Amino acid sequence: MKTYRIIIILSTCFSFFTSFAQESVKEQLEQKVKPNIIIIFADDLGYGDLSCYGHPTIITPHLDRMATEGQKWTNFYVAASVCTPSRAGLITGRYPIRSGMCSDRSRVLFPNSTGGIPAKEITIAEQLKKAGYATAAIGKWHLGHLKQYLPTNNGFDSYFGIPYSNDMDRKNAEGLSRKEIFWDANIKYFDVPILKDEDIVERPANQHTLTKRYNEAAVKFIKENKGAPFFLYLAHNLPHVPLFASEEFKGRSKRGIYGDVVQEIDHGIGEILKTLKETGIDRKTLVVFTSDNGPWLSYQDHGGSAGLLKDGKGTTWEGGMRVPGIFWWPGKLKLGIVSDIGSTLDLFTTASSLADIELPSDRIIDGVDLSSVLFEKERSERDNLIYYRGQTIYAARKGAYKVHYITQTSYVKDSKKINHDQPLLFNLEVDPSEKYNIAKEHSEIIQEINKMVEIHKSGIIYVKDQLVERIRK
Amino acid sequence: MKTYRIIIILSTCFSFFTSFAQESVKEQLEQKVKPNIIIIFADDLGYGDLSCYGHPTIITPHLDRMATEGQKWTNFYVAASVCTPSRAGLITGRYPIRSGMCSDRSRVLFPNSTGGIPAKEITIAEQLKKAGYATAAIGKWHLGHLKQYLPTNNGFDSYFGIPYSNDMDRKNAEGLSRKEIFWDANIKYFDVPILKDEDIVERPANQHTLTKRYNEAAVKFIKENKGAPFFLYLAHNLPHVPLFASEEFKGRSKRGIYGDVVQEIDHGIGEILKTLKETGIDRKTLVVFTSDNGPWLSYQDHGGSAGLLKDGKGTTWEGGMRVPGIFWWPGKLKLGIVSDIGSTLDLFTTASSLADIELPSDRIIDGVDLSSVLFEKERSERDNLIYYRGQTIYAARKGAYKVHYITQTSYVKDSKKINHDQPLLFNLEVDPSEKYNIAKEHSEIIQEINKMVEIHKSGIIYVKDQLVERIRK
Repeated sequence: MKTYRIIIILSTCFSFFTSFAQESVKEQLEQKVKPNIIIIFADDLGYGDLSCYGHPTIITPHLDRMATEGQKWTNFYVAASVCTPSRAGLITGRYPIRSGMCSDRSRVLFPNSTGGIPAKEITIAEQLKKAGYATAAIGKWHLGHLKQYLPTNNGFDSYFGIPYSNDMDRKNAEGLSRKEIFWDANIKYFDVPILKDEDIVERPANQHTLTKRYNEAAVKFIKENKGAPFFLYLAHNLPHVPLFASEEFKGRSKRGIYGDVVQEIDHGIGEILKTLKETGIDRKTLVVFTSDNGPWLSYQDHGGSAGLLKDGKGTTWEGGMRVPGIFWWPGKLKLGIVSDIGSTLDLFTTASSLADIELPSDRIIDGVDLSSVLFEKERSERDNLIYYRGQTIYAARKGAYKVHYITQTSYVKDSKKINHDQPLLFNLEVDPSEKYNIAKEHSEIIQEINKMVEIHKSGIIYVKDQLVERIRK
Repeated sequence: MKTYRIIIILSTCFSFFTSFAQESVKEQLEQKVKPNIIIIFADDLGYGDLSCYGHPTIITPHLDRMATEGQKWTNFYVAASVCTPSRAGLITGRYPIRSGMCSDRSRVLFPNSTGGIPAKEITIAEQLKKAGYATAAIGKWHLGHLKQYLPTNNGFDSYFGIPYSNDMDRKNAEGLSRKEIFWDANIKYFDVPILKDEDIVERPANQHTLTKRYNEAAVKFIKENKGAPFFLYLAHNLPHVPLFASEEFKGRSKRGIYGDVVQEIDHGIGEILKTLKETGIDRKTLVVFTSDNGPWLSYQDHGGSAGLLKDGKGTTWEGGMRVPGIFWWPGKLKLGIVSDIGSTLDLFTTASSLADIELPSDRIIDGVDLSSVLFEKERSERDNLIYYRGQTIYAARKGAYKVHYITQTSYVKDSKKINHDQPLLFNLEVDPSEKYNIAKEHSEIIQEINKMVEIHKSGIIYVKDQLVERIRK
């Protein structure tokens, strides 16, 4: 046996080194290959709505696995706490004020709105097209539904989804209370269309199977494009109200229909990760999961949870703007929890960096490149954030500290707006729930943040408000 | 090369099967061997204070790993929301009302108290002694500090720690505000003793190195007892105020001193897991991590966070009673998240089951055996919980539903007590934050829970209140 053993050991060593060398060459080649990028965007999902972010009864094993096998960001922000401006921020890498995609007079775009993302804005898809990416948008768009504003006219090869929120185009519900419309939701109350590229293919959308179909479309796109670098923007319409899950998921979660919906999204993510693995491109693909804003608290148990954060959607409290942020890329990312600041604003810049495309030089890009955090866990280049509500700056963060100039409670009609002559100051690292105002003790920090905000303001050129114009009968 | 390859394959297969068979036999043997049991108990650590339960800036990689490699329980409860009764519940497997270890006139035991755990109570340590376990208590006891009540007279072979809370025996702080005493804490303000078995070996305790020394003592005990089944009860005094971390951990966390302290506890858990692995007994050892009650919110940033749960320590809202609960036992547990109900009350019964010891037949044991959840992820045998504040039932849970008969806000002197003639009802699975009272819609559930409470009450025999007697000068 002795001779055999030596042979075995030598041979094992040899094949180990061969495969190691091959792996190394392969990895180097891969580094030059532009990675696929998938952004999965949930709608109105709060900071506390995944099990890896502490929810007790919404169980999301696939997102939890993404977090364990990747990076879980705990200070990850959107550019605004409602749909349209938040999406504009992600897609352009610029605060929505720069594109006119936020307004003090209309929170978001509505089916009778005439505005949308201006042609001169460069979307992530247009940016990645420069490097030959195949691009697809699946799901909610909400950056304008007139033809010129649709994904296919903004850098995406294809589009499949509802072009705005799933609670719009309301009809057949005259005389019903909000409770009846939403808690016993029927798809006929919401006459929203599904578009294939630019054409309506279904109306009202069968929302029961919406998440399922979005997931299937995503898997199909990945399989069809496994050979090319691709960019997939999968923006679920849910868990925005009204809530619908497929038969397979109804009643699955202890958290009620809201949990069922989130778990169906999670299931789809499992299918996507499995597809990446099966097609052998998982090590070439960055997957990012996040949400467009915090939970819509006024919908009670049909809205989500911001966990330990204060308030929710529509507000500039942390619960409105801070969301789950999970990055996954097997074999590439430095694993663990990242508590530095990041934002959906940074995805444009980070994607450009990964695909080796220069940033546009004719405009301000607000995003930073997160690569060094992703690959080396170095300090994030982002150390600040401006919190807009509409076109107005309500708050600003620099490092650990956040100043509130104006506060306003949840996204309801009678919400009280308070102008703080003496701004509020919180240390978000120590006090993430924004409970203990330390303005008196640290007026110098307020002054420093004021300066930062003034510099930011001085760089803003006011452009046409895209949200305010609507066709009224 | 061809012949060699076949030899290699055959030989590899052979050694694979050999080791597989060995492993299988070993496993069978191990199943008959009584496992080691380690319970790690934090003090005043809230539901939201670990990264795996959603905290953004307290980073606890070792506890997170325990959760990923084991079971993370999201509906895990203590028997009371303050120290002494909570610990009595864990150590006896009985609601503290049965042992007299809770009171309407004194929240906990104080240094001038004369009571303690009655001799006729059977502690987990005494129970495991029946099966020959080596037993050690390290850390906070708080079940009586007179000789007869100490761990060494209650089933533990040895004891090392502060016998009550680390903020007691206050002196040298005359004229100082609470803020000065706690935020600029000095160990001389807290003249608490450290006991070795029954003797004071240090006073005032050097609390800076307390967590470090507890962790070291735990590692030492494990190494010394690796051959025998053992029970280790490691009850940290921290993160109860005043907060102290060792030099190595001061300033490590973004969450301030509170985070430093939790991260030092987490580090110690890493050392314990490493020791179990290095001594080769990890697959024979169940490790449980939990906390004695929710966060002490009145201490602001020196207190913790209950995450999405309402209120904290001292209350019967979820934030007071629901705590992290992590179970770890490599190769044995069915992994994942458990959202069924469990309690520290169940550790006595579960430990008895694992060690194959009969439960005492002369008394009511309130705990259930969690084994089937741990090993098979079957439905938990526990479907209810009674929420006591002192000797009074404030609330009760059955399945998803919780009734509040009395509510009282945080653990502060002016907290308001409200008797609800019409009890409040919450669905905790759908509404963990106890926001939406559904009493009107579900009076039948209240009646069902009322019945359960009446049955529970009828089984209570009032015994001597151990907490009320104190020596007063």
